[in-house]
Amino acid sequence: MSEKKDILLPEPTLRRLPWYLAYVNMLQAQGVEYVSSTQISKEINVDSSQIAKDLSFLNIRGKTRIGYSVESLAEELSNFLGFQQEHSAVMIGVGSLGAALIRDSGLMQYGLRIVAGFDINKKIIGTEICGVRVYDISDLKEQQKVYKANIGILAVPVEHAQESADLLSEAGVRAIWNFTPFRIKVKDDVVIQNTSIYAHLAVMYNRINAKK
Amino acid sequence: MSEKKDILLPEPTLRRLPWYLAYVNMLQAQGVEYVSSTQISKEINVDSSQIAKDLSFLNIRGKTRIGYSVESLAEELSNFLGFQQEHSAVMIGVGSLGAALIRDSGLMQYGLRIVAGFDINKKIIGTEICGVRVYDISDLKEQQKVYKANIGILAVPVEHAQESADLLSEAGVRAIWNFTPFRIKVKDDVVIQNTSIYAHLAVMYNRINAKK
Repeated sequence: MSEKKDILLPEPTLRRLPWYLAYVNMLQAQGVEYVSSTQISKEINVDSSQIAKDLSFLNIRGKTRIGYSVESLAEELSNFLGFQQEHSAVMIGVGSLGAALIRDSGLMQYGLRIVAGFDINKKIIGTEICGVRVYDISDLKEQQKVYKANIGILAVPVEHAQESADLLSEAGVRAIWNFTPFRIKVKDDVVIQNTSIYAHLAVMYNRINAKK
Repeated sequence: MSEKKDILLPEPTLRRLPWYLAYVNMLQAQGVEYVSSTQISKEINVDSSQIAKDLSFLNIRGKTRIGYSVESLAEELSNFLGFQQEHSAVMIGVGSLGAALIRDSGLMQYGLRIVAGFDINKKIIGTEICGVRVYDISDLKEQQKVYKANIGILAVPVEHAQESADLLSEAGVRAIWNFTPFRIKVKDDVVIQNTSIYAHLAVMYNRINAKK
């Protein structure tokens, strides 16, 4: 019943599931065969009843006294989280961060394939990064007819964030992964995921200073 | 009174401040001189009383009817958030993501300078990426005497996350920026900042599926 994936899950659950996956992936690499929610709880620092609740969304049941099969749990989690499907994405802004994300093969392991890049910089338009072609941003709508990407990744300077989001929305993407710290607005049917790694720096700097 | 920076701020405030900074940076690029909290509120979708409260941590006062000077607000926010100081960091794991982060000059604009990389892969040990030298991970403690980095960035495979965190802790870093989805544990005096960009993919995929 893979339809379970279509249930809107609470964000805290969705953020914890990858922790469990990371842990069971490690166990699998170590050759461990079974794991209990108590054991996961100890390692991950999440209440074991919470873990059981989170895992109840999946099509997997642990065996009494033995726990979950590590292999099945890894497989189920990865599949449930959408990491085993391929989601295509276009990269808007192929500057330092955008190019870095295109080069990061880790994204592919988590089901994200960047199929094309778009920029306004004439020097990089027409070039390729790891086989991904960079186009003029004015060609986005036209190229989307070919690439049909579901996701648009925003890695442009702040002052171009909103107009780029509008272009993506018009080009028919279903989600925008926003790496800028700008609060973009789009129509309700487009999913927005904000990942401002630089904002995390602010939190970390403050915590360091406060511990002095 | 820059000592204000040493107050432990609530995380939600620390996450909102970079949004305001992104917005005033944009205004500054557009040549706008003043901005009110009402105006910021409309753009950013945060209550204006909340904005006034957040900004009260800073050494800046708005003028009645005119609002805040855009230039001063940008300067104050950037300084307050620690983006104008230089924080040195070592990169543990110079694979795809680690190398990408070293190449991302954006981090430097936000006050983070990566001074050295460490890995176990003999093929990349001894090489340089954008002027950043890659060392054998076993040389971390020794090289830290030279580099004295405050921050360790973790971009290793999940199964090496905890041992790498232990090495960083022993090498005397004050904070670990953890890009792995693994829940590392370190002693209390080390700050941990988790930034699992792949976990954000899981949230986005679920939201897309739920909207089908």
